[in-house]
Amino acid sequence: MASSESTTQMKVVHGDAGYILEDVPHLSDYVPNLPTYPNPLRSNPAYSVVKQYFVHMEDTVPQKVVVHKDGPRGVHFRRAGPRQKVYFRSDDVVACIVTCGGLCPGLNTVIREIVCGLSYMYGVDKVLGIDGGYRGFYSKNTIDLTPKVVNDIHKRGGTILGTSRGGHDTSKIVDSIQDRGINQVYIIGGDGTQRGAAVIYEEVRRRGLKVSIAGIPKTIDNDIPVIDRSFGFDTAVEEAQRAINAAHVEAESVENGIGVVKLMGRYSGFIAMYATLASRDVDCCLIPESPFHLEGKGGLFEFTKKRLKENGHMVIVIAEGAGQDLLTESMQDVDQKDASGNKLLQDVGLWISHKIKDHFAKENKMAIVLKYIDPTYMIRAIPSNASDSVYCTLLAQSAVHGAMAGYTGFTAGLVNGRHTYIPLNRITERMNKVVITDRMWARLLSSTNQPSFLKPKDVHEVKKAEQPPAQLLEGGNCNGGAEEAKKVEQIPTQLLESKIN
Amino acid sequence: MASSESTTQMKVVHGDAGYILEDVPHLSDYVPNLPTYPNPLRSNPAYSVVKQYFVHMEDTVPQKVVVHKDGPRGVHFRRAGPRQKVYFRSDDVVACIVTCGGLCPGLNTVIREIVCGLSYMYGVDKVLGIDGGYRGFYSKNTIDLTPKVVNDIHKRGGTILGTSRGGHDTSKIVDSIQDRGINQVYIIGGDGTQRGAAVIYEEVRRRGLKVSIAGIPKTIDNDIPVIDRSFGFDTAVEEAQRAINAAHVEAESVENGIGVVKLMGRYSGFIAMYATLASRDVDCCLIPESPFHLEGKGGLFEFTKKRLKENGHMVIVIAEGAGQDLLTESMQDVDQKDASGNKLLQDVGLWISHKIKDHFAKENKMAIVLKYIDPTYMIRAIPSNASDSVYCTLLAQSAVHGAMAGYTGFTAGLVNGRHTYIPLNRITERMNKVVITDRMWARLLSSTNQPSFLKPKDVHEVKKAEQPPAQLLEGGNCNGGAEEAKKVEQIPTQLLESKIN
Amino acid sequence: MASSESTTQMKVVHGDAGYILEDVPHLSDYVPNLPTYPNPLRSNPAYSVVKQYFVHMEDTVPQKVVVHKDGPRGVHFRRAGPRQKVYFRSDDVVACIVTCGGLCPGLNTVIREIVCGLSYMYGVDKVLGIDGGYRGFYSKNTIDLTPKVVNDIHKRGGTILGTSRGGHDTSKIVDSIQDRGINQVYIIGGDGTQRGAAVIYEEVRRRGLKVSIAGIPKTIDNDIPVIDRSFGFDTAVEEAQRAINAAHVEAESVENGIGVVKLMGRYSGFIAMYATLASRDVDCCLIPESPFHLEGKGGLFEFTKKRLKENGHMVIVIAEGAGQDLLTESMQDVDQKDASGNKLLQDVGLWISHKIKDHFAKENKMAIVLKYIDPTYMIRAIPSNASDSVYCTLLAQSAVHGAMAGYTGFTAGLVNGRHTYIPLNRITERMNKVVITDRMWARLLSSTNQPSFLKPKDVHEVKKAEQPPAQLLEGGNCNGGAEEAKKVEQIPTQLLESKIN
Amino acid sequence: MASSESTTQMKVVHGDAGYILEDVPHLSDYVPNLPTYPNPLRSNPAYSVVKQYFVHMEDTVPQKVVVHKDGPRGVHFRRAGPRQKVYFRSDDVVACIVTCGGLCPGLNTVIREIVCGLSYMYGVDKVLGIDGGYRGFYSKNTIDLTPKVVNDIHKRGGTILGTSRGGHDTSKIVDSIQDRGINQVYIIGGDGTQRGAAVIYEEVRRRGLKVSIAGIPKTIDNDIPVIDRSFGFDTAVEEAQRAINAAHVEAESVENGIGVVKLMGRYSGFIAMYATLASRDVDCCLIPESPFHLEGKGGLFEFTKKRLKENGHMVIVIAEGAGQDLLTESMQDVDQKDASGNKLLQDVGLWISHKIKDHFAKENKMAIVLKYIDPTYMIRAIPSNASDSVYCTLLAQSAVHGAMAGYTGFTAGLVNGRHTYIPLNRITERMNKVVITDRMWARLLSSTNQPSFLKPKDVHEVKKAEQPPAQLLEGGNCNGGAEEAKKVEQIPTQLLESKIN
Repeated sequence: MASSESTTQMKVVHGDAGYILEDVPHLSDYVPNLPTYPNPLRSNPAYSVVKQYFVHMEDTVPQKVVVHKDGPRGVHFRRAGPRQKVYFRSDDVVACIVTCGGLCPGLNTVIREIVCGLSYMYGVDKVLGIDGGYRGFYSKNTIDLTPKVVNDIHKRGGTILGTSRGGHDTSKIVDSIQDRGINQVYIIGGDGTQRGAAVIYEEVRRRGLKVSIAGIPKTIDNDIPVIDRSFGFDTAVEEAQRAINAAHVEAESVENGIGVVKLMGRYSGFIAMYATLASRDVDCCLIPESPFHLEGKGGLFEFTKKRLKENGHMVIVIAEGAGQDLLTESMQDVDQKDASGNKLLQDVGLWISHKIKDHFAKENKMAIVLKYIDPTYMIRAIPSNASDSVYCTLLAQSAVHGAMAGYTGFTAGLVNGRHTYIPLNRITERMNKVVITDRMWARLLSSTNQPSFLKPKDVHEVKKAEQPPAQLLEGGNCNGGAEEAKKVEQIPTQLLESKIN
Repeated sequence: MASSESTTQMKVVHGDAGYILEDVPHLSDYVPNLPTYPNPLRSNPAYSVVKQYFVHMEDTVPQKVVVHKDGPRGVHFRRAGPRQKVYFRSDDVVACIVTCGGLCPGLNTVIREIVCGLSYMYGVDKVLGIDGGYRGFYSKNTIDLTPKVVNDIHKRGGTILGTSRGGHDTSKIVDSIQDRGINQVYIIGGDGTQRGAAVIYEEVRRRGLKVSIAGIPKTIDNDIPVIDRSFGFDTAVEEAQRAINAAHVEAESVENGIGVVKLMGRYSGFIAMYATLASRDVDCCLIPESPFHLEGKGGLFEFTKKRLKENGHMVIVIAEGAGQDLLTESMQDVDQKDASGNKLLQDVGLWISHKIKDHFAKENKMAIVLKYIDPTYMIRAIPSNASDSVYCTLLAQSAVHGAMAGYTGFTAGLVNGRHTYIPLNRITERMNKVVITDRMWARLLSSTNQPSFLKPKDVHEVKKAEQPPAQLLEGGNCNGGAEEAKKVEQIPTQLLESKIN
Repeated sequence: MASSESTTQMKVVHGDAGYILEDVPHLSDYVPNLPTYPNPLRSNPAYSVVKQYFVHMEDTVPQKVVVHKDGPRGVHFRRAGPRQKVYFRSDDVVACIVTCGGLCPGLNTVIREIVCGLSYMYGVDKVLGIDGGYRGFYSKNTIDLTPKVVNDIHKRGGTILGTSRGGHDTSKIVDSIQDRGINQVYIIGGDGTQRGAAVIYEEVRRRGLKVSIAGIPKTIDNDIPVIDRSFGFDTAVEEAQRAINAAHVEAESVENGIGVVKLMGRYSGFIAMYATLASRDVDCCLIPESPFHLEGKGGLFEFTKKRLKENGHMVIVIAEGAGQDLLTESMQDVDQKDASGNKLLQDVGLWISHKIKDHFAKENKMAIVLKYIDPTYMIRAIPSNASDSVYCTLLAQSAVHGAMAGYTGFTAGLVNGRHTYIPLNRITERMNKVVITDRMWARLLSSTNQPSFLKPKDVHEVKKAEQPPAQLLEGGNCNGGAEEAKKVEQIPTQLLESKIN
Repeated sequence: MASSESTTQMKVVHGDAGYILEDVPHLSDYVPNLPTYPNPLRSNPAYSVVKQYFVHMEDTVPQKVVVHKDGPRGVHFRRAGPRQKVYFRSDDVVACIVTCGGLCPGLNTVIREIVCGLSYMYGVDKVLGIDGGYRGFYSKNTIDLTPKVVNDIHKRGGTILGTSRGGHDTSKIVDSIQDRGINQVYIIGGDGTQRGAAVIYEEVRRRGLKVSIAGIPKTIDNDIPVIDRSFGFDTAVEEAQRAINAAHVEAESVENGIGVVKLMGRYSGFIAMYATLASRDVDCCLIPESPFHLEGKGGLFEFTKKRLKENGHMVIVIAEGAGQDLLTESMQDVDQKDASGNKLLQDVGLWISHKIKDHFAKENKMAIVLKYIDPTYMIRAIPSNASDSVYCTLLAQSAVHGAMAGYTGFTAGLVNGRHTYIPLNRITERMNKVVITDRMWARLLSSTNQPSFLKPKDVHEVKKAEQPPAQLLEGGNCNGGAEEAKKVEQIPTQLLESKIN
């Protein structure tokens, strides 16, 4: 009864009771007569005791796990893991790894585990590191990566490969892939980078190359949809506690002390929200998804004054991208973009600190002491914590299993606690955002006791703007699925496309 | 098409396509004509902007999320969260909280959030702390818990309520519940404690009392089935890294240095396995689930000698309950039990250190230097990390929502990333164990490159003994569901029952 | 042969072989016929086994410990510690504690130990906390401090008493001291605060009050002369490592990456220097004492370019007060002062980051990526580390012993590893500074391999400006004595005096 | 008026006013006509701006800094630092470094800084690492040490050279020194190791070799006399706080909970004492210097019972070598020794835990719960903190300056905050111990409020046994000088000597 439709980006399969599988592309979709080989893991002693080691070809994972008795089964993704047959001979594989965009705890762990996974599990020993992001494909020498070279790198922050923003020139990159004989490309980066990966995949397919393109989503902000959480996020929330504690101590030690902490989050406030929930010392958490105003009734200044009068001090956590409309108004100069296509945001932490100081200086009644902390680089640069380390390991191994099995144009991702292969377009077409009409945000409001800052009109609009969330977000998994996320701005994709031709 | 069967422990509901709901008991199951009240959260400003705030009565969460297109839908649990109607008037609630068993990071966070949840969300202000575990119900004064009292306790390790093992006298406990007018009981503890909770629930039901019994599973070992992971586990794995690092440094600094680290895990080796995977410095990980032998071919001594010759040093991680058969053989004295019914295990770390030293002393060819580290109490006693803190918050709030909604005899637990209510018997009838015929253990073997220590005969037996795992375990979620777990020893339940009459 | 001269600020005693004692004032200097009492410590069981418990009246500590065989013995200070006789009956003591200026790790430990020292050693139970710095004497209620209240405060950063800058109104403060019957005043603060303490002491003496004024020098910058190091300094240097590590990781991960870390140090670069020496990842350390220039030969830009070409990345540590002359030139607006009399410095970290970015943007040949980290508040707000905790304890106990023994107008301080009483004017008349013609700074230059940035003319001037350092500075003790320090700007004292009338 | 006496171990010079200089040996004492060379530092740009860079030949540092106006000046040591002339041409130097005994935070930092100091300051590029302690001289290959090799080692714990106990065969070692052409030997180790260094120096002198022997004292226990503190001690005290905190949390969480923490300290209790003073959670601190008894009046059991009744819990810190007499009595088997000559002590922590449990089990009235923590290896294996890192740097540089200047048979050490050269016999003839009749111990007793455990007879004996401490110990410096220390057991020296012939 199942039907099937296919695009170059994903293959949709339908089943009974509303079952949908959004499958990832495969090399055999466009390269005819590909030979297969038995998976070398069969002879690996570590795996010999494991029964049912290989993933069943039918295994899929539902995107929604809050279900009704008679409801439709909905969208599913292909389960990640080793397959009985692989599409590459170990000796033939030439893999490469590239890291793009900002730093994120765990980058080196992912690199390490791709190299070790390829080597120890599949006997692959040709792995190249691309130096300094996308542009390294065509402007730099590659770095030979061996298990020995990467042995201790997971204990260090940053990325040993170097990184950069932008630099995506599709033709040159695919030329370089062809010229160097690379046939597995592991691309670690955020949404812009994954859009880049999709374009590379399309071009590789157009040229008919037997090259697997595997994405590993990287975003400290956790703003990638579909997946449960991005690697490094846990570590970032943990480390953010230090800054919040410091802000709290500083604020408490003076009369009318205000501590302001800026945390990462250009378009989504997950780090700010989780760091606020994990700490209990925050009085106000401002995120991009929740509009607020400064002046007047229900505004931030009023709330600040109230909280100072009650407690004598106050801690504000603000995500990097919060209040952009207000900032824009203030600044009147907006149209800069950084190379990856994200808006080059002004520092909202400095801006709001200035605004608050100004306001209370003008009021002339209340002397405040404000301390501003920006721990961004101190958070980004640490190594992954244990939980993220294990996660990075499994992500990397999933990607390796997928590429060896001939899948391409996919990203490895955790969905409802299971590792899956997700079509690249599913994670770039939208952005994961905090749903401010959801219970998680209500929990935050309840924990800080801050006002919603929404005017009645806003409430209505916000509710209207968002699709009814089919499943609500919970603690173990940060994400609630693509349904809850708003369409992402289209700029970056166009930017990439304009470069391709 | 749905049918329904009911026991006192759980209510099973069947649906289409193999859908099964294992529902938790409700006060209205045995108390007739219970009045209901509108949920006070309706008027909470923090929740006013949230649409669809209350959980739909039909929301359920599947236990299996790796599914086939046409496979049966399987077992589901009721989703946790606030309900439209509650079965208690806020003013009438007298809640109590008890913590039992060993320390675990996050205990104080759970206590704090039950108190704050009851107070801030439901306006409940009578919350009693039971002092020192189950026996505190009848032998100690209670402690008044208010948001002010618990405000900063999450920054400290341990439990402000005190804890103890055993002390479960059902009649006296239920007498005390009745006498003090308590109508919500929050019980935080491991599998023995949750079996105790089930017995209390049965007695409360027998007496026809309108008292909700809510369990919150606590086990640093992660040995509770069904749920994704237990709180404190992440923190424990993180903290264990310190000990492994120290063992590695000590071992590397001398010729033929061996570092032995004992980690928690009486019946299951999750902490040892995850700590080994997160670190990359471990050469051998020994857990209760994986039998091993010391002497002869394929034994630990042979492997140790080999590794020392290759690398000059070695790090061994051993779970507290590993090698119990060997230890028993050595000791010949076994039948002690501690009050909670767990076997009082001899210290396997000291034992194996002694055995290794002895072996190489006798061999007279290889002088080794062995350092033994037991970080157990240093791990248990720290506060929860950020990730566990958020998790504890949501667990506590789930329990509060459930009790207010009239559910009883349930435990709050995360299943596939969603908070659910699980019948108590489902989490006590089995134990969660590392499945050594699963890919996660294969990953570990592959990462340490240690032998499986299994003899061909063992492999056969192990494979036979375990049910075919319907779903395999993955990184994001530690657990793979009850199907993969072995039946737990029956001793503790009998112990409890013998006490009841 | 010994002669003696006396001022109100200190009493100078001469001895053989060039021996000089700079003694602190005593209540009996101006209050006639003071009764004395046996020290209550005599009956304290903890002290009963100690022989020679009380400090010998003749014990003094030399300021210089690098000596020549036949050289003069030089300046000495009175040794701190308990005396046989005290000048207060325990029941009569009303002590108060005030904390002023910025936060510093260990403030709460000092408070705790003054309270516990007075209570446990001397049986004093009337200790008042002054709320929010000097102005709390006359504008706020006091806080009762008991051992129970302060029991756990040393585990928290900040100061439980609150703090503020300025607010020094001598008459009102001494009125308050008189009105409240306070007879021991413990003043914890930096050089401005200690100058305030000296003025209070003078006024108290003028009024003939039997009130001991005891100072405890607090400066995270370590800029107080004479003493070995100030409390909190060790902790600050330790914590600064995090920021330097982060800057290093960020810089290494991109092409031509520059990490800039601003550390505390308005007038002296000790934290920057020691943090640089403790880390090995810093390429350039800029401090107030060492002039530098940006443009041209031997300038910072040239060095930056050179280092980027050699290594591909660079880490710069800059003390808060470095390059003020350049900044002033840039800004043209200088005369603001904050309430404590320190210049309100512009943020030199943001300024230099901007300058560097600008320079390389203009050069148009070298694209750099600069990340700026300001960890100031994250450093100030942490609790003291173990070493500082023990130090704070002994400082506090010294102050208590001194006040009980009737000394006044003194500050407690560690001199060459021994606790002493130092006349207040000795620590306020100058500032401790890094001596850039000394070997410690040479060590730093050697470790970073940075140029001295001095032009030949500068070298000459610097050498001329500084007195020949009688003793050079070494690792164990940060300070080299007042001889090496330049005269401090006179502004703050005038500021205070203008208020005193 | 100055006279001078000379032995092979030290040269004593007398001066006016009771001045004594205990000078270290020099190569020119026994090698005639040694040429000298100008110090290469003269041309180092980092040093060019420093005036008076070279240490004045007359600079000495007094051992006592608590002095009386007309008292004698006492013993002095030669000041460390660079000299105008050196006795080695840079190209001729072949240096070697050896690390012996147990791990200590900072070992790698000292190694790094000797290598970098020799290379960067003196242009020496032949530095050999001896592998695995003394026996590495004759049984192993050496390791080439360059600045590049040691660049990052200070961030790791342990020693990259490896270490071992014993293995001191003087003839073979000096043969190896001769054969390999080594002329500077840097020996890092504890008192046994330094006694070994003295013997090597004597043999080198006997053979008339131009070889400098420089010792760097290493003892995490801080039991080396004369010097202020040993490197790694600060780090150890800091890290010990974790274990004490954990013990406190465990003890507080149960009824009659006892937390026992064993800390390092075979013969001296400095770590236990300082860790107790830095924490405030310890109820009882037991050290080797302070005898105690278990049973009866004034015994540990009585105190334990009392404290449990008062507080409900208790934390005991016990140094590794405390209560050896009691343990010996219990055990009846004593005469084992480890290779370095230290008694192989039984684990006193396990022993006392057992004794306490036994006692209260027998008493049958008081159920206690005891948790024992041994953090020893977790403390030893961490890298040095910032304060120790700077200290290690200066120690290493002092040793390098001294060896280059032709001094030999010396140890580098901090005395009253100044770096000095100390004759080897001065630091091996005695041991630094906690003086329990001193104020520092009184402070501890006062802070824990524990009894002195001394019987009146003991007090008398202890007071008699100890020389009158000429100077008392204070917070900044741990040590009070050799006068206060008891003669060390003579075993190890004999052991060494028996091996020489």
